[in-house]
Parts: sequence; C-alpha cells; structure tokens
Amino acid sequence: MTKTIAHELAKKQREISIAEFFERNKHILGFGNPTRALVTAVKEAVDNSLDACEEAKILPDILVEVHTKGEDGECKIIVEDNGPGIIRRQIPLVFGKLLYGSRFHAIRQSRGQQGIGISAVVLYGQLSTGKHTIVISKIDEKRPAHLYELAIDTNKNTPEIVKNEVTKWDKPHGTRIEVTIVGDYKRGRRFLYDYIQSTSIVNPHAQITFVEANGEKHVFERVTDTLPRPTVELKKPHPQGIELGTLIKMAKNTSNRKLSTFLKKEFTSMGERTTDAVCRIANLDKDANPKELTRDEFIRLLKAFKKVKIMAPPTDCLSPIGETLIKRSLKHETQEISPEFIVATTRPPSVYSGHPFQVEAGIVYGGKLDANSPVKILRFANRVPLLYQQGGCVSTSALSDIDWRRYKLEQRGGKGIPNGPAIFFIHVASTSVPFTSESKEAIADVSEIENEIKLALRECARKMQHHLNKKEKRIKTREKFELITKILPEIAKKSASMLEKPVPPLDAVITRIMDVVWIEDIITYEKVERKKVQTTLEGFDEGKNYGYITKSQLLVANYKQKPQKFNLYALIPSDAVVGFIDPKPAKIEEGKYIKWCLPAIEPTGKLEITFELAGLDKGDFDENDLYVEGINPEYVIGADKWEGD
Amino acid sequence: MTKTIAHELAKKQREISIAEFFERNKHILGFGNPTRALVTAVKEAVDNSLDACEEAKILPDILVEVHTKGEDGECKIIVEDNGPGIIRRQIPLVFGKLLYGSRFHAIRQSRGQQGIGISAVVLYGQLSTGKHTIVISKIDEKRPAHLYELAIDTNKNTPEIVKNEVTKWDKPHGTRIEVTIVGDYKRGRRFLYDYIQSTSIVNPHAQITFVEANGEKHVFERVTDTLPRPTVELKKPHPQGIELGTLIKMAKNTSNRKLSTFLKKEFTSMGERTTDAVCRIANLDKDANPKELTRDEFIRLLKAFKKVKIMAPPTDCLSPIGETLIKRSLKHETQEISPEFIVATTRPPSVYSGHPFQVEAGIVYGGKLDANSPVKILRFANRVPLLYQQGGCVSTSALSDIDWRRYKLEQRGGKGIPNGPAIFFIHVASTSVPFTSESKEAIADVSEIENEIKLALRECARKMQHHLNKKEKRIKTREKFELITKILPEIAKKSASMLEKPVPPLDAVITRIMDVVWIEDIITYEKVERKKVQTTLEGFDEGKNYGYITKSQLLVANYKQKPQKFNLYALIPSDAVVGFIDPKPAKIEEGKYIKWCLPAIEPTGKLEITFELAGLDKGDFDENDLYVEGINPEYVIGADKWEGD
Repeated sequence: MTKTIAHELAKKQREISIAEFFERNKHILGFGNPTRALVTAVKEAVDNSLDACEEAKILPDILVEVHTKGEDGECKIIVEDNGPGIIRRQIPLVFGKLLYGSRFHAIRQSRGQQGIGISAVVLYGQLSTGKHTIVISKIDEKRPAHLYELAIDTNKNTPEIVKNEVTKWDKPHGTRIEVTIVGDYKRGRRFLYDYIQSTSIVNPHAQITFVEANGEKHVFERVTDTLPRPTVELKKPHPQGIELGTLIKMAKNTSNRKLSTFLKKEFTSMGERTTDAVCRIANLDKDANPKELTRDEFIRLLKAFKKVKIMAPPTDCLSPIGETLIKRSLKHETQEISPEFIVATTRPPSVYSGHPFQVEAGIVYGGKLDANSPVKILRFANRVPLLYQQGGCVSTSALSDIDWRRYKLEQRGGKGIPNGPAIFFIHVASTSVPFTSESKEAIADVSEIENEIKLALRECARKMQHHLNKKEKRIKTREKFELITKILPEIAKKSASMLEKPVPPLDAVITRIMDVVWIEDIITYEKVERKKVQTTLEGFDEGKNYGYITKSQLLVANYKQKPQKFNLYALIPSDAVVGFIDPKPAKIEEGKYIKWCLPAIEPTGKLEITFELAGLDKGDFDENDLYVEGINPEYVIGADKWEGD
Repeated sequence: MTKTIAHELAKKQREISIAEFFERNKHILGFGNPTRALVTAVKEAVDNSLDACEEAKILPDILVEVHTKGEDGECKIIVEDNGPGIIRRQIPLVFGKLLYGSRFHAIRQSRGQQGIGISAVVLYGQLSTGKHTIVISKIDEKRPAHLYELAIDTNKNTPEIVKNEVTKWDKPHGTRIEVTIVGDYKRGRRFLYDYIQSTSIVNPHAQITFVEANGEKHVFERVTDTLPRPTVELKKPHPQGIELGTLIKMAKNTSNRKLSTFLKKEFTSMGERTTDAVCRIANLDKDANPKELTRDEFIRLLKAFKKVKIMAPPTDCLSPIGETLIKRSLKHETQEISPEFIVATTRPPSVYSGHPFQVEAGIVYGGKLDANSPVKILRFANRVPLLYQQGGCVSTSALSDIDWRRYKLEQRGGKGIPNGPAIFFIHVASTSVPFTSESKEAIADVSEIENEIKLALRECARKMQHHLNKKEKRIKTREKFELITKILPEIAKKSASMLEKPVPPLDAVITRIMDVVWIEDIITYEKVERKKVQTTLEGFDEGKNYGYITKSQLLVANYKQKPQKFNLYALIPSDAVVGFIDPKPAKIEEGKYIKWCLPAIEPTGKLEITFELAGLDKGDFDENDLYVEGINPEYVIGADKWEGD
C-alpha cells in the first residue's frame, strides 16, 4: 500500500527521556534565569539537608558557600550538612538520576517529595557550565568518607560516575555537595539572603551559616534546641477524597481477599465500625473479593467514604510551626518595623484527595509598614519559603478573594491584594503539597486548601479587627477617664477650699460619668532558672523551653453605679503551661483558656487577677485576649463578648 | 559493621515512574481541580488536532462534544478531527505513554512540544473515573479505521491495550478520542467556551464545532481558507544563546572530524565566513577535532558566538499571526464593546538559549470597556490561549513593569496591572516556549522574552498615545474650525447686507485664525469580484484574500497664510497590496509605507490623495497612520512628525 501522511509523521515519533525533557525545560525546574537558578540550586540542597537531619533526629548545622572566582557568570555553590550521610552505592542515584528518591512514596510532611530537586541542580550545572558535581558523604565516624564526581547521561537518565574515591573528611557524618552553575550572583544575592533568612525563621532548630562570595559570613543561629515534632510516616492513605483510579489500582494489587480486611488494613482511620458502616451504605458484601468488584461498586464505595463520618487522619504525619512560633518568628523578622501587633493561627488538619494538610496564617500590622503599598505576602510550604510565582499561588488567590475593606485595609472593589501596613504569613503543611510545577514555587488551586487558607486568614483578620476595635474603644474611654479623674478632683478641691468645706466624695460622680467596667492588662517577663521552674510549676514538661515566665496582671475596675458580677475568660496559647494563678479560676482548659467567676465588684471597687504562663519566650505573649460573660459587653473596656468555647 | 541511620534511610530510596509521578502530581498537568481539568482535557486534544492538520496541510474541522449524562460529576469528552490520522502501531504509544511524541526534537513552532499532553488526559481520566479511553483513527480512505481502548500502567509508564479492533468510520481520515474524566461542567462550561472562542480567534483557518452537554451547538466558522504559513522545521540549533552543556554534548556526539565542519553542518546560520570569524576570535584551529576540545576551549567558542554577528535564525520555523489578523480578531471579539481603536504589532524574530521566538501584541481601547477595572489580558503561546496562571506569566510581569501612567492609564506607583478601558493581547511564538509547567499555562521569566514583550507593548502604547493625541488635537481644532467657518461667514454676510456692500473674501481671515494644515482621512470598502481584482491589480497573489478593496481618501487643506510644500507618508499594513494610487507617489515601500512629495499648496488650497489597498478584509484597516516631513509638524492636524524609516 502507498505511504500516507500519517506514515511520514510517524517517523518522527520517539520516546523522550525525562532528563532530556528537563534539559530542554529547565525553567520548569526553577532554572529559567540565572538569578532564580542561583536560589533554586541552594534551596534544593538545603531542603535535602534539613529533611535528612530531621529524619535522623539531628539538629541541623548547615553551611552554604557561594564562590564567584571562576568564569564570568559562573557560581560555585557548596552546601554542607551534619546529616546522616548517604550510603555509598546510592550517592550516584540520588544526585545523578531524576525521579529517584525516598520521600515520594512516604506519606509524611517533608520538604522534598518528588525525587527531582537535587538531581535537577546537577543537571543544570552540567548544562550551563559543562562541569561535574562533586559529592562527599560520610555515614559514620568509623567509616571513611566517599567522594564522587558525577554527571548525568541525559539520553538515558542515568548517573555517569567520573570519579569515585575514598577521601578524608573531619566531620563525623554528613553530606557535602559542590556544584558550579551559571548564576547571577549580583542580582541573586539578595534573594538568596532572603531565602536563607526565611528558611531559618520557619526552621528555628537549624543553624545556617551563609558565606558570601566576598567572604562575608552570616550566621543564622538556631533559636531552639528542640527538633520539630518528628513526623510519623502514615503507612496508609486516608479514604476521604481518594481518587477512583487509585482505589481500583489498590484493590487490584491487594493481597487481602475480603473487602472488609482490605479496607481496614490498607486505609487509615478505618476501624471495625467505620468499615461496617461503609460497606452497609455502599450496599456491598463485607466478604466480597476486592479484586472482583465492578467499577460501579467501586463508585458506591467511594460515595460511602464521603457519607460515613470517618475519623480525620492522624495528624502526627504533619508538623505545623504553631501559633507561638509563628508570632515569635514574625516578631523577630519585623523588629525594625516595630509593628503594632502580630496575630497568628494554626487551623486543625484537613484532607484533600486523601492527603492530610494543615494551614497556618499570621498578620503583622502597623508600625513602620507603608500604609500605601500592597501588603507583603510571606508564603511557606512544608517549612520551605516560596519566593517566586506569587501570582500563581493559591494563597494569593485565597487572600485576594477576601473583602479586606471590612478589616480596614484598602482594596479596590473588594478583590485583589489589599493595600495597607501589613505583612501576611501563610504556611501550608501537607504530606503532599500540590505544587504547580517541579520548581515548587506555588501551590495549585485545590479548593479544599483554598478554603482552609481563607478560614485561617479570616481568623487572623478577626483578631486584627478585635484588636483595632479594642484599641479604639480604650483610647476614647481613657481620654474621658483621665479628664474626669484629673479635672473633677481639682474642681472639687478648689470649690471646697473656696467654700471652706471638706472635699466631697467624687466616686459616685465619676462612676456616673464613666459608666464602664475597665480592664487593664499588664504583662511582664521574668527570667528563671530551669531548676526553679521545675519545682514551682505543675505539669512541667522536660522537653519544653522554660527560660521565661510570662506574668499577666489584670486590673478590673468597676466604674458603674451598681455592683458588677460576671465571668472573665483569658485565652492562652496552645503551647503555654499555666503556672501560678490567683484568684482561683473556675476552669482551666489547657492550651485554650482560663475562666474566672469573679465575685461581685462594688462601684469604684477594684479587683486584681494574676496568672503566670511558662513554655513561652520573652515577648511571645504580649497582650491578653479577654472575654466576658454575664455582663453587657458594651459596658466593658478591654474585653469582648464571650461567644462560647 | 553496624547499620547506620543512612542504611535505614537508604531502604526507602526508589525509582519513580514518570506516570506515577504525574498520577500523584496531577495539578502540574493542569488537572488540579475539576473545572480546570475539563478545560485542560479539551485543550490538549484540540491542540493535537490543530498540530496534526497543520503538519498535513489540511484545513482543520474539529468537533468538540461534552456529555454529562453518566455518573455525577463525570464528563465524557469527545474530540474528533479530519487530520491525517495516526498509524496503528503508534496509537497506544501516543495516547498511553507519557514523554512520547514527534514534536519534542523538532525545532519548529507547534502547540504540542512535550509529548505529555494527551497521554496526561488519558491518565487523568483513568485516575479520576477508572474508565478507559477510546481512540479511533483512520489514515486513508482506502484503509479501515482502527479502534483502541486504552489505559496506562502507571508503574511502568506503558500503554495497556484493553481492546484493539478494526471499525467502520465514514470519515476519509482523522482521529477521534473519547475520554471520561471527573470535571465540573457547570463551572467549567464558560471557561471551555472562552477557550474554544479564543482558539478560533488565533486559528482563523480552523472550523470548530462545540456541542454542549444540553445539545446546544456552537459553530466557530473559519474566517479564512488560507492555512497559516507552514512552519519549516529547523534542522539545526542556532549558536546564539546555546548552553555550554548542550554544545559539549553535540561535540561529543558529532561525526564531523573538523571543528569548522561541525560548526557549519550542525548549526544554523553558520556560513563559511561566520565560521572562520568564530574560530579566529575563539583562537581555535578550524581543523581541530571537536571531540577533543577542552572545556575552556568550548567556553571560548561560546563567547565567540556572542561576539561575532551571526545571522538571525531563519524565521520560517515560526508562524506569527500578523498585525492585520490580530486586529481583525480583536475587532471580531470586541464587537459588542465597539472600542474606540485597536492597535497591534508583530516584533521581528529574536533568540533565547538558541531558540527562535517572536512576540506580537495588541491593545483594544475605549468603547464600553470599564475605565475603573484592571485591564483585561489575553495571552497566547503558539496560537494556544493561556487561560490560567496569569499572575505567574512573564507577559503579566512585563506588562506590570511598564509605567502606564505615561500612556494615560491609571496605575498605582507606576507598577502592576493598570486600570483603564483596555484589553491587552500578547502572543509568544517559539520553537520552544518556556512554559513554567507541563500544564502550559504560563511562560517563564526569560529575560529575552520579557524584553521583547515590553518592546511590543511599548510600540502599541506609542501607537495608542499617538492616536489619543491626534484625536485630542483634532477635536480641539475642529471646534475652532467649525466656529470660524460657520460664524465668520454669517457675520460677514450680515454686516455686508447691513452696509449694502458685497460679502468680503474671508479666506485670509480664516487662515490667519486657523494657522494649520488640516488632513482629513476617509476610508471606505468596496466588495469586489475575485476576477475583477485579478485584472485591475498589479502584483496579484493567488493565495490572498481579495474580497474587499480598502479605499483611502486623504484631503489636505492649507489653512496657513503661506503656500506649503512637504512630504507625506502613509503607513500600510505588512500584508496589504497597494493598488490604484493618485497622485503618483515618490516611493512605495511594499508592506511599510507610501511616500508622496506633495506639490506646493496655496493658502486655502486643497489637495486630494486617493489610494487603494487589497489583501485586507472590510474593517481591517480603518484609519491612516500619517506622517509629514519638511514642515513643522506642530502646524499639522492629522499627521505626526516623520522620524525616518
């Protein structure tokens, strides 16, 4: 038969190697231009070091060096860690093969998850400078260090070992990578510094030393000796939101012969009762062979997963930063701005497509921040700062979708990034962050994640509004109060002396004019010896940092004409431990709030409340969030209406 | 020896299949949420159909159908074309294997370039619904059609053939794909319609029929029978901007023994003289064996590539849309807005990292467009509309980087997306568009491309400014003119009749007050028979569309007190053919401008110029862009200063 056009076209069809694909599409990996390439290269190496240290429960000590002494436009990057090292035979694969790694199949929160990052750096180095990468790794004090010089055969996506030798290295264990890339150090330096600084903010347990090309050395000290809560690898997926295709694939490959066993053994959160309920609602026989289910039956199963209330996945595969640490970090980063206040929140964990995730947010407000510029957005995913592609990130679209005019920020049409003196912090932690590309710079618009981000931001926004309102109310009332308490007695004194009569009691007059309950909030910090704390505090937890005691003093003054009796609530950070407290509270909800049923306070009467919090650093807690119950909140200055637990 | 932590960690290291990788990271491919998934699936199939038809020089006739009758949330998508078809043995690979394709290694402008798109749709269908994809293809009238039912084995990235049979299909040739995915038709419908409409705008030679889920049928008719200029595959890369790693790889694999032959045979634009110059400047022996060059010598070669002026790559691998067609398309799309004017520009081709590319831009201004909203941005890459990730696209950042306040648009701080009654059109055509991810929704920030986009936008902006200024000036002068030419004669007549004297000549007075040269521009269209045009026009080109003749009538009136003699230039679109013209011009620069050396015009004297353009549709050319030389342009209404060719 004659050849058709299709035959002609068919001649060109070919398989493409993944390395060849990325060699051509280096921008997808974050190497689109020399400025970005510099940051991406360092980021991939540091991510790996942090992950490795965390897995091995080692406090990370990371060295980042950039040298520009070679060819024009070339940067030699060195990243060295004190991690567990990599065993000899895997070094070439880890660094010289794309799509090879340990974290892809593990259901846990980690920085790397694709098996592409570090080998992409090696690939880009080779592509842009023709130079090989040198890796040194040592896994134990008693063993020698190994040095590899590596390249990647892009036609085959396999490592090419140029050199492989035993070498001396004085570190007990760790990994060091030396890679030369085309990078723009002059323009990239600032981004690199920002990246390292931001990384150190969300990894307070890491010590990062950054040696610049001119030899200048910046040490980002660790601020805590406590490792982040170790994330536990989830062995099985959560049924909620799992894809039909994945479910069918799992059932095909299972060795369990019964549907109920399959469900219980291969999914998380599937206990006896839940499994029964799922099977009943799906109208499926518990003893059916999962391999023999039809597509329709799988669909019924999937629907049943959504109908039955299934316990949320265990959250120990996630490691959020936590409200206090976020506030502390933001406070640290914004020292020079001296912001008016900082709020933060950690949402409960949630699930998308079977992957657990958790959102945290924070807002820094006021101070020297420019009120006329767009708000600054700090984005993080699994404790890694996201520096590029802000416009393409779900956190930006979630933020842009909120009407910020309600929270006193300027925003055209109630859409888009608002203007105002604020910095927004957004952190998404997940066992599988849905990045929009392999360069991991932006999170895809998954609706479940978008909703959680909105909820977190709104929570912060409400706190912000609450703060602004309280402040406004307090300022107004304070003026009135000062006027009354200063001028009235003066007048009284003068009139009395003119009339030669004794000064009349003014309390009744003052209360009549003021007509409020005033709550004053004073916070002080006291440095304490570890030992002392141990003995004076109940519920002492060995692992916590008790360097400071945060003392709150609440002064409640009744400037109303009648005695007042009400309940007072003070919110406490989730990671604080309550110590000394007086008067005795009605209830302490650990990590949430303290409740007092106050005795009646007579007109012009005052009451003092003191309580101490441990487990926080100086400045972590700098304002009480107070609520009242059993009194018209309109009359109260310094607290809002208690809306329930 | 004892096992270290590194040994523990090593156990988890594994190779990851590319299909498995994308199964997990479906958002990278554009399937992050059900709305987007719907659009992506259709887009990948239509892209393939358009590419195939273009390669086979067939006018595309594409059918897109969406059915939602099946399971809740499932959409069955059918895309059928009249393309060349795919030969039997390659059908499973094209649709069932990621990273397989014909366009990855070809240096030419095409929609698909990664070998991922359509197999990703099959993968997503299987993942989300568990259903297989059905492909029917026929390559010749005389041969049978083949039907395949396909799945992808994600562990191996290989096609799984579920069914393979000969079938009847009444089409002479073409391909049909049926895939069922989880998609949100309710929310996605509008985006899908937008995508198809935009696609039809930049592919005026394609006929696309869209049958909605409710049976409603939209036919996007082809507006031209002319196929886009066929792109010629560039066999060799251009030396400019090539990566060092690629150069070394090429030299390693070459069969040429001499450096000069290697350069001449394996690169484009490298003639004898250029090759000599490169070798001389690099201080390399022309006869050296390219395989034996050192890294330093390659670097010298690379530097020489930059120093020697090398001819730009041939541009026939690119297929820009063209100024006229952009204007026509924009006019078509904005009919309901009745914009004040539309400008467009096509930049000359340029090169980044060895890849030729070309930028086109356009601005639609005024009419019913909202002056208070951000401008709308329409982005295209290789004639494919980009619907998502606007914030992450280099076209957005290029646009945001221009100070639009200079061009009378509102823009806070001279940065960001401006507000104003405008639509911006940006098209990037390249043999290799640097997308930020496999979903091909945004272009990476490659500085060469960013610069060209800025230049294109600034060109449009200048045209826009030019237009706005001219309009403003004309309005002002016209008021004055109308006042003078209506009121003065009335006064003269009245005074004359009162004094019983004849009406005095007013011309001198009018010219003294007006003191300008006025150029009026009237454009009309005349429908002509193809035959007639053929006989009346010189330089008739068989392939062009001569349905209309665009007639320009320029009236030049001298309202100055002295005779005026100057040169007039009228710009003409690059794709127009000049027909009848009177008076005789001094020069016609085909596709650029017509120049007249006008005779002296006496005060109050008038001159009429007529010329006809063919090759354009009605309305393509609706305003002359006029320039003058040899006269103070300040005095001229309706033309600007000629700044040279």
